[in-house]
Amino acid sequence: MRVMVTGGAGFIGSHLIDALLKRGDNVVVIDNLSSGKLSFIQDHINDGNVEHINHDLTNLEGMAQHFEGIEMVFHLAANADIRLGTQITDTDLRHGTVATYNVLESMRLTGVDKIVFASSSVVYGENAPMPTPETYGPTIPISLYGASKLAAEGLIGSWVGTFGFQAWVFRFANIIGERGTHGVIFDFINKLNATPNRLEVLGNGLQEKSYMEVKECVTSILHVVEHTDLPFNLCNLGSVDTISVRQIAETVVEETGYHDALIDYTGGDRGWAGDIPRARLAIDKLNQLGYIPSMNSKEAVRHTVRALIKEIGLR
Amino acid sequence: MRVMVTGGAGFIGSHLIDALLKRGDNVVVIDNLSSGKLSFIQDHINDGNVEHINHDLTNLEGMAQHFEGIEMVFHLAANADIRLGTQITDTDLRHGTVATYNVLESMRLTGVDKIVFASSSVVYGENAPMPTPETYGPTIPISLYGASKLAAEGLIGSWVGTFGFQAWVFRFANIIGERGTHGVIFDFINKLNATPNRLEVLGNGLQEKSYMEVKECVTSILHVVEHTDLPFNLCNLGSVDTISVRQIAETVVEETGYHDALIDYTGGDRGWAGDIPRARLAIDKLNQLGYIPSMNSKEAVRHTVRALIKEIGLR
Repeated sequence: MRVMVTGGAGFIGSHLIDALLKRGDNVVVIDNLSSGKLSFIQDHINDGNVEHINHDLTNLEGMAQHFEGIEMVFHLAANADIRLGTQITDTDLRHGTVATYNVLESMRLTGVDKIVFASSSVVYGENAPMPTPETYGPTIPISLYGASKLAAEGLIGSWVGTFGFQAWVFRFANIIGERGTHGVIFDFINKLNATPNRLEVLGNGLQEKSYMEVKECVTSILHVVEHTDLPFNLCNLGSVDTISVRQIAETVVEETGYHDALIDYTGGDRGWAGDIPRARLAIDKLNQLGYIPSMNSKEAVRHTVRALIKEIGLR
Repeated sequence: MRVMVTGGAGFIGSHLIDALLKRGDNVVVIDNLSSGKLSFIQDHINDGNVEHINHDLTNLEGMAQHFEGIEMVFHLAANADIRLGTQITDTDLRHGTVATYNVLESMRLTGVDKIVFASSSVVYGENAPMPTPETYGPTIPISLYGASKLAAEGLIGSWVGTFGFQAWVFRFANIIGERGTHGVIFDFINKLNATPNRLEVLGNGLQEKSYMEVKECVTSILHVVEHTDLPFNLCNLGSVDTISVRQIAETVVEETGYHDALIDYTGGDRGWAGDIPRARLAIDKLNQLGYIPSMNSKEAVRHTVRALIKEIGLR
């Protein structure tokens, strides 16, 4: 199958491409490399299995042509820095909502009608019961990033209902693993490299979320797409439990060997305005479709800490 | 209180202004008159109680200054033609989603932090149980208009969660009444005036929805705002029952006196792609807050048919 991956040079995108190539797909990547790294997919490009197009998805002009002949679009491109919304308010609107509109419109113009979308658990907001099922409502995100994910879900639903598209929307827990370019583990390792005797942690450390390993994430996406066929398919992706920021910090200190590091909590129940202190997704639907994640949050974190220490290096 | 009403020259906006002035407010209207009519509020402008600013909400430039000194914003401006999304795909994105972002950003820049927003029952999509409670999820709209309302809800939630705003979001049933400038009753009267012997009805006439009279709509909005005080308040607005398009068509034929008109159904279970054939909101929350609509759907429709016949005239 000839597929497109937006954000294909990014963290999750590049792992998805590994999996797509393994099953024999031909892949077109749209990525403007604002946070993605060409090195993640350079081998595949050299092998002739992946075509990379450098195009900014906020610009509809000249975009549709790249969708000609594509059978399915995996739309992963987005601003990855959730905190940024507290400072600059139009990033998620442009790179999330408008970019998704541009992807859908390019698809409509070229007759491509199947889309897989990476949404997020943050659409559930901060008052959801845990574990949170897909049927929870109302979905009131509290971050601008979350607002853009909810907006994109709605746009996709409307393209399904109005233009006969078929869609798979995944609400991701925190996805972590090799090639991580952002997020709490990445930050902690870099902070410790900068000041080995001190690790500043945003919030009181009691924030508690669910983490899923990235290879399991992409495997489960492809599994669910293969096993569901409604016009609009929605599925939570996460692991079975949670881990606290405090436990993550301690794991990073332990694995880096910076044993003298003082973990310094900035205090408050959340990392920043718009952060959701506690999140765990119900993954019954994923399980019922036949996919059981093999790592829990603690295992995914340990695995990722070790992998990122290798990638980033210690000073 | 000095308040702003976006879309204040429109159908619902002008009725809201009547009610706001009655309680003693001072009103600034932003309306580019794309579908609103200055005549709806001209008397109030002449009396010096309403200031009208002609500004396109899709243009953030020069917008914030108008929000200085405002205590509460009633954001009603939107594209009112739901069907248009099937033809032109960026109208709702620009006049719904981006306009709402611009309103929120103008508020943030000027320190205005209370917003009342007119959302819609169409955010619930087509698979919701009836009557649909506010807690129903997932909300998967099937029209581009619905997508823009969901996007706006998310943006508002994120401004509440990130910037400390307070919000009241109302999911409207079909709002009808005096000064109607669009919608099924308005269309039917105009169609009969054009061809008195034939009334074309989109769909099979079995579409069945809930209708609320516009004065009850604005009264209930002000009632709920007065009686709720959470950071984010969500409330369905509608009447207790539904009426079918067939019944509406028959009421219009009866009241206009065009008794020879043949009602001609185009067929199919919905009026257009993205139309939701059946909708009824649970209004338990509205009732529990102390507001009981006095008209059911049938009464609201009869009332509106008579009022619009007077306004439009018969040929």
